[in-house]
Amino acid sequence: MNSLNNIYVPYQGLHLLADLHGAKHLDNIDIIERALSQAAHAAGAVILDVRLHHFGPDQGVTGVVLLAESHISIHTWPEHNYAAIDIFVCGIANDAHAACDVIAQMVEAEHVERKEIARGYAAQ
Amino acid sequence: MNSLNNIYVPYQGLHLLADLHGAKHLDNIDIIERALSQAAHAAGAVILDVRLHHFGPDQGVTGVVLLAESHISIHTWPEHNYAAIDIFVCGIANDAHAACDVIAQMVEAEHVERKEIARGYAAQ
Repeated sequence: MNSLNNIYVPYQGLHLLADLHGAKHLDNIDIIERALSQAAHAAGAVILDVRLHHFGPDQGVTGVVLLAESHISIHTWPEHNYAAIDIFVCGIANDAHAACDVIAQMVEAEHVERKEIARGYAAQ
Repeated sequence: MNSLNNIYVPYQGLHLLADLHGAKHLDNIDIIERALSQAAHAAGAVILDVRLHHFGPDQGVTGVVLLAESHISIHTWPEHNYAAIDIFVCGIANDAHAACDVIAQMVEAEHVERKEIARGYAAQ
């Protein structure tokens, strides 16, 4: 799943950007919060802090989980059934795609578009 | 500066990922916090919340600013003079590169590598 697992360097970071289309529950801050927490768990990451903001009834939610291994964020536009997420994990033992799968499943996304970006001092 | 200004769609998001090399002050949580706040200001964004975590003396700092327009994050590795930042702004009036410039200047980065990723429901 994680292509960086094949690169044997002492450190690598994977920054996974995912656009979720045709998604539901994007105005539901409780579902978004559970999705973020379960995503961190699925990634094998340690949660330091979870912060969310709801822009109002029927409106979007912004949330970030600070991880010992970097972060997961989500920004939702319920009026477009669209959410932008990014998952940045800096341990090769962490599975960013598993985190993405959890969020996509919890918001019932019909289509997920992913981009993998290598990060870190060894990623030049 | 922002190439997305040339795309005439009702919504676009710019996700700017930047790797800062040869940087200083990366174990200084006060400088990192000021850098994040000033970066948000430079981007023309509205701050909802600022969260930071210091991993210990001489160690890295993780920080996220939740914005009305999405977020700015930073993760630092002082032992490698390296910081990873991402700036996600969803208004074409917001200047992600200006935010990046502010952070790079405050941590005296010698080299900045940037990647622009178009985000949003109109970015497929």
